[in-house]
Amino acid sequence: MTARRTGRRPGDPEITRRSILAAARAVFGRNGYERATMRAIGAEAGVDPGLIHHYFGTKQGLFAAAHEIPFDPSQAIRAIASGPESELGERLTRFYLTVVGAPDSPALSMIRAAASNETASQMLSEFIEDLLLTHAASLTSAANPRLRFALAAGHLIGIVFARNVIGVRDLAEPDLEVLVAAIAPTIQHYLTSPQVVVAAP
Amino acid sequence: MTARRTGRRPGDPEITRRSILAAARAVFGRNGYERATMRAIGAEAGVDPGLIHHYFGTKQGLFAAAHEIPFDPSQAIRAIASGPESELGERLTRFYLTVVGAPDSPALSMIRAAASNETASQMLSEFIEDLLLTHAASLTSAANPRLRFALAAGHLIGIVFARNVIGVRDLAEPDLEVLVAAIAPTIQHYLTSPQVVVAAP
Repeated sequence: MTARRTGRRPGDPEITRRSILAAARAVFGRNGYERATMRAIGAEAGVDPGLIHHYFGTKQGLFAAAHEIPFDPSQAIRAIASGPESELGERLTRFYLTVVGAPDSPALSMIRAAASNETASQMLSEFIEDLLLTHAASLTSAANPRLRFALAAGHLIGIVFARNVIGVRDLAEPDLEVLVAAIAPTIQHYLTSPQVVVAAP
Repeated sequence: MTARRTGRRPGDPEITRRSILAAARAVFGRNGYERATMRAIGAEAGVDPGLIHHYFGTKQGLFAAAHEIPFDPSQAIRAIASGPESELGERLTRFYLTVVGAPDSPALSMIRAAASNETASQMLSEFIEDLLLTHAASLTSAANPRLRFALAAGHLIGIVFARNVIGVRDLAEPDLEVLVAAIAPTIQHYLTSPQVVVAAP
């Protein structure tokens, strides 16, 4: 019936895509990010898990699409990782301030929801932990890359929180480039400086 | 009637204190932090504004007490400002990670509420702006002290958000001292380094 109403045939890629996204939202909501498997989402949507990989790549990509985040995190991380390592901090800072902190960005909605809702909070923390793993793999020359990216991400989430979620004027008013110039060297320090004290394993 | 029920006489300091706190919550809720005046709160409570100053010192102290924050922000800032300037970053970092990030700290509740509620958000951002002004007055030897403290506060709020509000494992699991050792030099850099690029006024 739905197929006839929308003028689409069963087997239509757009319908399949949408059922996968609906199934993903349901399974992420029920199980959290970490315990949600492509297999369970496939079962919920009535499609082969391979088809989900075909449409959305990784679980990160599926999670982003299900929450209307307009970019694939794995691709974004690859883009941030490419280029001179000496400018890694600047690329990561610019990405957070422009993309995550964009007005009405779905990432802001996720931060808002996670602050007051237990399920959303667990989902976001597990998603961030998974991103840190992917990020860390891009840092080949520094010890403890996960903690380094966690410090950088914590810093940048806080700037976005103060600037874009609650709107503290001292951070909301300065031009983007003023903030990038002030913050990028710190992020670079966390990611690459041998002077960052890190946990004994 | 209330006085008789609680066994307290009108004029009892504890009753006066509580009516001031109730009036403060009402006026802050209605007007936001910035536009709430001691005069309006005094009128709401039926007491002289001078009595509010007597009990709570500054508007920051009254706001903190009304939200059950167990310390007076102005006094905390004075404590952070005292001691060698070379350890200012460490004192500020330790304060955020231990006091603001303490389990069930009222500051965490304020961050949670501000993330999803417009009134709470405006109140918290105005309160932070007022704290930045007080903080900034303690930095006598650096240019643009407000922006410096805003960068430091944004960074530390983000660490507390990731560690204590949503619980990202990479920041929740390390010992406090590991995080202080990693973060304090960055905070010190923001507060005192001549290399921090700052906005043209």
